[in-house]
Amino acid sequence: MDLLKERIQAEGLVLDNSLLKVDSFLNQQIDPELMMKIGEEFVKRFQGERITKILTIESSGIAVSVMTGLILKVPVIFARKKKPKVTDDNVYTAKVHSFTKRESNDIIVSKQFLQKEDSVLIIDDFLANGEAAAGLANIVEQANASLVGIGIVIEKSFQPGAQKLIQAGYRVESLARIKAFSNGQVIFY
Amino acid sequence: MDLLKERIQAEGLVLDNSLLKVDSFLNQQIDPELMMKIGEEFVKRFQGERITKILTIESSGIAVSVMTGLILKVPVIFARKKKPKVTDDNVYTAKVHSFTKRESNDIIVSKQFLQKEDSVLIIDDFLANGEAAAGLANIVEQANASLVGIGIVIEKSFQPGAQKLIQAGYRVESLARIKAFSNGQVIFY
Repeated sequence: MDLLKERIQAEGLVLDNSLLKVDSFLNQQIDPELMMKIGEEFVKRFQGERITKILTIESSGIAVSVMTGLILKVPVIFARKKKPKVTDDNVYTAKVHSFTKRESNDIIVSKQFLQKEDSVLIIDDFLANGEAAAGLANIVEQANASLVGIGIVIEKSFQPGAQKLIQAGYRVESLARIKAFSNGQVIFY
Repeated sequence: MDLLKERIQAEGLVLDNSLLKVDSFLNQQIDPELMMKIGEEFVKRFQGERITKILTIESSGIAVSVMTGLILKVPVIFARKKKPKVTDDNVYTAKVHSFTKRESNDIIVSKQFLQKEDSVLIIDDFLANGEAAAGLANIVEQANASLVGIGIVIEKSFQPGAQKLIQAGYRVESLARIKAFSNGQVIFY
């Protein structure tokens, strides 16, 4: 998606040749019009698929997911991140480790919002090691729902997440795939 | 806003005659079409005002804010909640106490996204004790930006937040104002 790549090139900040900050349109400040265009692109990529729910994770996945949900006229569920605590029978839980933040969280979704009849599209902002997406996919499986695929805004393809998810049999559609960072520049596929 | 009140009546869950859960369309599952209608209502309420930025707080304020921002064609900034830690000169910080969760957080916004020329609309999902909205207003003031007003989806008017904000001189527009909970029912103004 060229528009997205141009924004990343123009506004993204590469730190230590490993981290990409896109705080000006995705992770702290949000550009709603760009989010809508990203939503339209996800709808195009998954055209023809039956989608009844979108599943994402707080906070940066929400904006692009609600735009996609607005076009498809389907609800968006966002998993919440919580410190692991006592079991709650009313929620699905998956463990997610963040390498960036060096912490593990449980992600939780109320059972009432995912049924076995649901056909779910997972959406997230970043894909690096694939921990969040794998956790969300795990929750879809716990609910015995169908998983249509995983829509990602920015994929760091040099990290193992995308490959792991594809090997696990999931369809992954990433709108900007980063091959490498080089001298503070972003190199796309 | 009648459509919103109807959804609260139909789907809201009143706990202990003090807490209202609207997890089916706002706080865990999101109804994007309702979020868009709420956005349209905020735009109507603040019509004629100059708005250059929308400021909200993660996570439940994001969906309705991006819809409002999409109509107004302005960026949305979301404050992040963090455990208080060492000072960072690049961010504005305000302390916010949550009575529901019985914890205090810092809310933070990168200084680069709020300028003194900005004219800011604050949006949040719930208004009860007014701690989050007051913290966001405080951040707007730290940036020497103008505060247009505060748009709230659901106001629990029997708690002191709205009155405190109005007394502080802020314009508050709440789309559903709850007078009381009675036997598990929601009574609106």
